[in-house]
Amino acid sequence: MDKVRQLEIVEGISVEALVGGMEHCGFGARRLAIAARIYEEMLSGQYKKFFALSGAMVPAGMRNIVSDLIRQGHIDVLVATGANLVHDIIESFGFHCIGSAESDDVALRAEGVSRIYDVFLRDEDFIRFEELMQSILPDTTKTISGAQLMKHLGSQISDERSILRSACDKGIPVFCPALSDSMIGLQAWLHSQSKRLVVDAFADIKQIIDICYDSPRSGIVIIGGGVPKNFALQSMLVTPKSFDLAIQLTTDTPENGGLSGATLSEAISWGKISAGAKYVTVYGDATITFPLMVAATLGRIKKGSP
Amino acid sequence: MDKVRQLEIVEGISVEALVGGMEHCGFGARRLAIAARIYEEMLSGQYKKFFALSGAMVPAGMRNIVSDLIRQGHIDVLVATGANLVHDIIESFGFHCIGSAESDDVALRAEGVSRIYDVFLRDEDFIRFEELMQSILPDTTKTISGAQLMKHLGSQISDERSILRSACDKGIPVFCPALSDSMIGLQAWLHSQSKRLVVDAFADIKQIIDICYDSPRSGIVIIGGGVPKNFALQSMLVTPKSFDLAIQLTTDTPENGGLSGATLSEAISWGKISAGAKYVTVYGDATITFPLMVAATLGRIKKGSP
Amino acid sequence: MDKVRQLEIVEGISVEALVGGMEHCGFGARRLAIAARIYEEMLSGQYKKFFALSGAMVPAGMRNIVSDLIRQGHIDVLVATGANLVHDIIESFGFHCIGSAESDDVALRAEGVSRIYDVFLRDEDFIRFEELMQSILPDTTKTISGAQLMKHLGSQISDERSILRSACDKGIPVFCPALSDSMIGLQAWLHSQSKRLVVDAFADIKQIIDICYDSPRSGIVIIGGGVPKNFALQSMLVTPKSFDLAIQLTTDTPENGGLSGATLSEAISWGKISAGAKYVTVYGDATITFPLMVAATLGRIKKGSP
Amino acid sequence: MDKVRQLEIVEGISVEALVGGMEHCGFGARRLAIAARIYEEMLSGQYKKFFALSGAMVPAGMRNIVSDLIRQGHIDVLVATGANLVHDIIESFGFHCIGSAESDDVALRAEGVSRIYDVFLRDEDFIRFEELMQSILPDTTKTISGAQLMKHLGSQISDERSILRSACDKGIPVFCPALSDSMIGLQAWLHSQSKRLVVDAFADIKQIIDICYDSPRSGIVIIGGGVPKNFALQSMLVTPKSFDLAIQLTTDTPENGGLSGATLSEAISWGKISAGAKYVTVYGDATITFPLMVAATLGRIKKGSP
Repeated sequence: MDKVRQLEIVEGISVEALVGGMEHCGFGARRLAIAARIYEEMLSGQYKKFFALSGAMVPAGMRNIVSDLIRQGHIDVLVATGANLVHDIIESFGFHCIGSAESDDVALRAEGVSRIYDVFLRDEDFIRFEELMQSILPDTTKTISGAQLMKHLGSQISDERSILRSACDKGIPVFCPALSDSMIGLQAWLHSQSKRLVVDAFADIKQIIDICYDSPRSGIVIIGGGVPKNFALQSMLVTPKSFDLAIQLTTDTPENGGLSGATLSEAISWGKISAGAKYVTVYGDATITFPLMVAATLGRIKKGSP
Repeated sequence: MDKVRQLEIVEGISVEALVGGMEHCGFGARRLAIAARIYEEMLSGQYKKFFALSGAMVPAGMRNIVSDLIRQGHIDVLVATGANLVHDIIESFGFHCIGSAESDDVALRAEGVSRIYDVFLRDEDFIRFEELMQSILPDTTKTISGAQLMKHLGSQISDERSILRSACDKGIPVFCPALSDSMIGLQAWLHSQSKRLVVDAFADIKQIIDICYDSPRSGIVIIGGGVPKNFALQSMLVTPKSFDLAIQLTTDTPENGGLSGATLSEAISWGKISAGAKYVTVYGDATITFPLMVAATLGRIKKGSP
Repeated sequence: MDKVRQLEIVEGISVEALVGGMEHCGFGARRLAIAARIYEEMLSGQYKKFFALSGAMVPAGMRNIVSDLIRQGHIDVLVATGANLVHDIIESFGFHCIGSAESDDVALRAEGVSRIYDVFLRDEDFIRFEELMQSILPDTTKTISGAQLMKHLGSQISDERSILRSACDKGIPVFCPALSDSMIGLQAWLHSQSKRLVVDAFADIKQIIDICYDSPRSGIVIIGGGVPKNFALQSMLVTPKSFDLAIQLTTDTPENGGLSGATLSEAISWGKISAGAKYVTVYGDATITFPLMVAATLGRIKKGSP
Repeated sequence: MDKVRQLEIVEGISVEALVGGMEHCGFGARRLAIAARIYEEMLSGQYKKFFALSGAMVPAGMRNIVSDLIRQGHIDVLVATGANLVHDIIESFGFHCIGSAESDDVALRAEGVSRIYDVFLRDEDFIRFEELMQSILPDTTKTISGAQLMKHLGSQISDERSILRSACDKGIPVFCPALSDSMIGLQAWLHSQSKRLVVDAFADIKQIIDICYDSPRSGIVIIGGGVPKNFALQSMLVTPKSFDLAIQLTTDTPENGGLSGATLSEAISWGKISAGAKYVTVYGDATITFPLMVAATLGRIKKGSP
């Protein structure tokens, strides 16, 4: 049996060195180090790279890490919650604010501030978001897919650090399976009252399944869980393929039986992840574990061309 | 200040009496008792009653409680994950099995068994599900809404304990905002390859907003969180209304900033829940807290006609 | 494979019936039902019954359930945190108050109120506690054990619903391994400045090991985790025995490697629980799961004489 | 209101830079950055520095970080669980092993292996631990305190990376309030059967209270919670002082009312932490957050002499 090696901290230690040292520790530290190791393999060029993004990652400051990963060629397929894309659009012209989780929410509403735990968003940014959406949503007689709508929105965003814009620039599909469950959905519906816009609820399914079919080997990073996790995993179900590498960063635990906390092993019983896959779940707040994993991995790999 | 009254257990104690006693305790016990008290008010006849259902509640055995609530007139609007509706349909002809969370998932796959924590489902039930779906999914030239599709499916299910069937019988709308993220979505897409079926991704929005507009007072029960929670809450956003009563039963906690664990107070800052609302979150596994809340409440109210 | 049977709620349902129905469900519901079944066996008369009590159960209203279990003969050995015993003593003359978890803690201090989540305790009750302790703590030249001190305190408490008093009346040993980590400890130290009182930090170990040696079969209920869990389990280590039945009610999960969330299976690797033991962990707030388990079990067994 | 600044990752980024960037993010990332900022102040030379250590930190590889902090002068008072000290002693001559959390615990026992989540310990190391303890435990007619016993043990350990040895070398008191709840306690009791060794259960209280009295300003780092957290905090109760700075790294959340998850704000209502204190809780696995906080802080301060 290998020894646990007590972790050493030296002054000025890099994230890569610290996470590297964690590989010989126990508990969450080891899980994080394994995640970095699997991620290194996932970015080796041999895998189709899926990325499932839930949790309020953009309001919490994780947007540029995601858009950089896209621009560096480290994400081939993005599945996201509507909320993350809404806030990505807001960040392209406005900003979120440092707030407090112990706020008086009645007072916040009176001041026109919406709270996301300890992050604030002012109504004026929502109003600008609505105006922007009404000006850039398409008017088309053709029934389109969700991914086509996302691509169109990305093309209309000027901020190059935007996730949607980066995906558009790189030709990466963005799937948002619960599109109606977001302010993009609300605005699209409002728009469709006066303009022509019909999104086929099932059209994305064909596109993502085709990608699964065409991927000899594939890996997935799952931030949080929810719909993006399941949508990406279930797409493998109707193909003979399954994920060969899988990383989940989540705060949910398996004991309650919900999807977001379900182990990646459970997904093997469904055939979504392959029997011989390498996988790990890192339990904890992804605003900590996600930057750590990325920073620890990027130093180890040759980056793709931007 | 009121005293904490030490809880007393007598032989044969009813759920109603036990939960009643918890009102004078602390921690989760008190939260549960408050939930039962708010639920009692919600079922008083003065509120439009929303119900947001996520988590694998149907595989875990909570289906009949939900369908009974519908038939008893205690749910006016249902927002559900696709998974719960898929498993509701499976229960209408097949069944889930008592499994183990400590299973060998590779072996399960070899045996054709999919695992949901400690519940198993055999491939043969999935195959029957697929056959049933292909036989009952509509062939229509009209672009329909998700709720219309759910109503149609409900009308085709013979099992009266089914959630979808009960909702159809009672004329209750069922919204499934992430429909493509489920096996219903997969089957609907497959069906649409040879038949005509287009579901407008945004059409449900109008219907639920109209309901919100028309509800002088409204209350919501949220099981879990995720898309059903947000879709129901955001529908109030574009109306001058907001929820007056709200109960959340969840295993997620606020500290990680995700939606499923976000406090109901946070929703006040968004204007989704009213400043003067009564609300409570009960932290814990809903397979325990949900039956307790329902059993404690039903004894206190005059039931609606079935 | 056995079927999951959808849970049914009938009006006036008893806790026993509801928890009984949960045995055929999944997730936490099934775990709770299994706990009740194991507890039924534990109370069958064939087992030495250990009870490890941590978490702020007494302030939260769970005191009478524990003292009733003692008086009914359902606890043979109690291992508790100092805090639970401090609050047990306070309840014997004073009371805890219904408070709020969203309080201004600076204001509370100014008002002389200490907060335990949503339970309040007024300084005047602490002062009476201190006075009582100084009047009842023993003055003895003999070095005594912690359990002897607990027995003495129990004998001085007039309230028959007290845990300490009930244990004293029934001749049940009460172990409090972290006695110095409590206000009993603080008061005992203060007392020892002017009176003679020396408690041997290790004397309890012999007594509990002797009990373990002399118990052909034994079971344990663990509320929370912490020191009471470990002290009870480690006592088996130095004997050829181990626990045959074990129930843990905890909010902690295994993934972080801590003791309170450690699985009972892990204790098998240490030899603290036997290889063939029946055991279950119910994840969730014990102010909900503990009364449920007790109420579900008591109806099924012949109670011991009080 | 300050802007959330999207986090940037550059190749080779140091922990200090990454954690520094998190100060402008939300959720756990911001909490971690605040912890590093408070820790920087705590190590500024103006504070008495308490350190409360629970959780299986030593088996998980965090031992050298703690002993380095002691040797660098960054810990003035250590309060620890017995388990961490037991495993510190084991590491001084033996080692823990990389194991798996999905092990067959019955098989492990048969092979003489004890499991701590995903860390293994072989019986032979326990046997050597027992032999060592019997050879180094003192034989004294004087009743001693727990801290005196810890100091004695530290003086007998040859490994300079040991926590106990480092504390002894630096003259730092080590308090272990639940000493009987550990294998040190078991061995001390065994030893006392043939040799003279009496530890006064309350003697530590005087020493730590004296330290509290004599500390104009004080700060505390709490890893986990449990007895070390409470023992350190309660020591302030009987003095006019309270902690001015407090950091808690824990996986427990407040909602269940237990001490380990209790907010530091709650401790203000008790008078354990001062009304104007700076404090933060970082929710998450301390095997990740603790090394991050230390690495981020050490670069910012002038280290004390070793």
